[in-house]
Amino acid sequence: MKAKKISVFAPATVANIGCGFDILGMAIHGVGDLVTIVPNTSDKLIIKSISGDGKKLTKNINENIVAISIQALLNHLNSKQGFDIYLKKQMPLSSGLGSSAASSVAGLYAANLFLGSPLSKQELVSFAMEGERIACGTAHTDNVAPSLLGGIVLCRNNEMAETISLPVPKQLYVVVVHPHYELKTSDSRKALPKKIDLKTGARQWSNTASFVHALHTNNFELLADSITDFVAEPHRKSLIPHFDEVKGAALLNGGLACSISGSGPSIFCIAKRKKNAQKAAAAMKSIYKKNKMGVDVYISNVNTKGAQQIK
Amino acid sequence: MKAKKISVFAPATVANIGCGFDILGMAIHGVGDLVTIVPNTSDKLIIKSISGDGKKLTKNINENIVAISIQALLNHLNSKQGFDIYLKKQMPLSSGLGSSAASSVAGLYAANLFLGSPLSKQELVSFAMEGERIACGTAHTDNVAPSLLGGIVLCRNNEMAETISLPVPKQLYVVVVHPHYELKTSDSRKALPKKIDLKTGARQWSNTASFVHALHTNNFELLADSITDFVAEPHRKSLIPHFDEVKGAALLNGGLACSISGSGPSIFCIAKRKKNAQKAAAAMKSIYKKNKMGVDVYISNVNTKGAQQIK
Repeated sequence: MKAKKISVFAPATVANIGCGFDILGMAIHGVGDLVTIVPNTSDKLIIKSISGDGKKLTKNINENIVAISIQALLNHLNSKQGFDIYLKKQMPLSSGLGSSAASSVAGLYAANLFLGSPLSKQELVSFAMEGERIACGTAHTDNVAPSLLGGIVLCRNNEMAETISLPVPKQLYVVVVHPHYELKTSDSRKALPKKIDLKTGARQWSNTASFVHALHTNNFELLADSITDFVAEPHRKSLIPHFDEVKGAALLNGGLACSISGSGPSIFCIAKRKKNAQKAAAAMKSIYKKNKMGVDVYISNVNTKGAQQIK
Repeated sequence: MKAKKISVFAPATVANIGCGFDILGMAIHGVGDLVTIVPNTSDKLIIKSISGDGKKLTKNINENIVAISIQALLNHLNSKQGFDIYLKKQMPLSSGLGSSAASSVAGLYAANLFLGSPLSKQELVSFAMEGERIACGTAHTDNVAPSLLGGIVLCRNNEMAETISLPVPKQLYVVVVHPHYELKTSDSRKALPKKIDLKTGARQWSNTASFVHALHTNNFELLADSITDFVAEPHRKSLIPHFDEVKGAALLNGGLACSISGSGPSIFCIAKRKKNAQKAAAAMKSIYKKNKMGVDVYISNVNTKGAQQIK
């Protein structure tokens, strides 16, 4: 087999999207991870380099999520192919933007491409979940599925890795503000109650239903109202510096809805049209600037392509 | 004002539709209530007759849900009009088919018609809720909204009485089996836990989301899978004689999904095409016949008209 290298970019993702705790996610542009794989002559995976991680990630192939995900795929395909792996993190860790998912997805998609694409993107979701199981303790698809597939994805059943791609309104823009403040997914999970009131549940499943209807009917007003999160945001927002102030600034300046991206600390906001997103983004950013906190800001429409080979 | 009488039929409804506890409902054909109103010269509502109720309903206008709902409308409109009210119950009470809702809706729609239709059907929903508040202790819209509007209705927010009419697949048929066994709504409510696991919640809001997507995409397989109820059915099914057997019979004989209609004891099943609905209905009925229990069976496509004047 002749040597060749494959590079794949996988985008950052906003999981939950307010109402859809553990079941909704969407991909954005402009931020994500790059994985390059080069076949080696051994039957092993070797992590050659990791950059952009502040030396926080391990090169141990039994603990690194990129290697774990690729190995799960190779095992499934009964392949003994070895790869040298180069991971370039181009997004913050523990940011609530699906950082670990983007890495797993980029590695998996690259390996699948090298092997002649034996599996579809849809079929790769369950292998990316292996990485998530290590990174988060539980296997969720709400980051990996949109990072792989692109778009807005409904993750029906985590065990089956069943996903549904929902319609994406053309004028939908997403702002993501990432304050420079580390919040571990595990700590953010701990803030959640194990049980919720049945009444609270009914409000939430009313919202996921109307969220889907709003996407199908291009109804931005309903979309905005549906994104209200009764389950996670009330318990997690105190973990995120200046959350209420940032949300207020977003909603007063062109933002239609605003909530926590994944398990935080990133905050997302949706807007109709780019100019409204830009206005909301500036207002959100100004809160952190005023409080002398570092912040990254991303403005993007929904990334409908997902993981892509970079040539 | 010249005397005239107005008669309105309001259909029975299947609330919850499996996954949508307290937020989804649909109207069916062939069963419902008939209310006739005749203006009187007083400024009072008088319930002249009630038939088909086994003498269980009160004629006291402060307790009868038809009178309460109409009075709420008259008060809102600052109208001093009095009516003689004739209620013909054409469906079983405490059946899980929205019996009280059908009565309120028929009365309200008749009174609104008499007054020259000052309010839309959509606007009448909140007045029908007044009746429900008396009948069930809490104000739900998942029976009243579909009985008024017809179709499959998403009730977004019970306090605001905000409703969304969802797409109705043409080939969708509904079977409802009503065993002759009285189950009070209040007892059925008591069987529910006040809190649910967050994980259970996530499965339920994944299902309401995919239910709506299935309706928009005419996907019967997804629709069937989405109707799975993780919240109410597990706790209520033991209150309904032979539930598991009836559900099994439905699913083995052309039924795509089967669960409890409203708070029971009626059981509904959905099917694609009438012939499958008929086959499932026969199988479901046979379980009660075998057990020497009386049973009513309704086979219908979704009633998209809702409350209608009868001339």
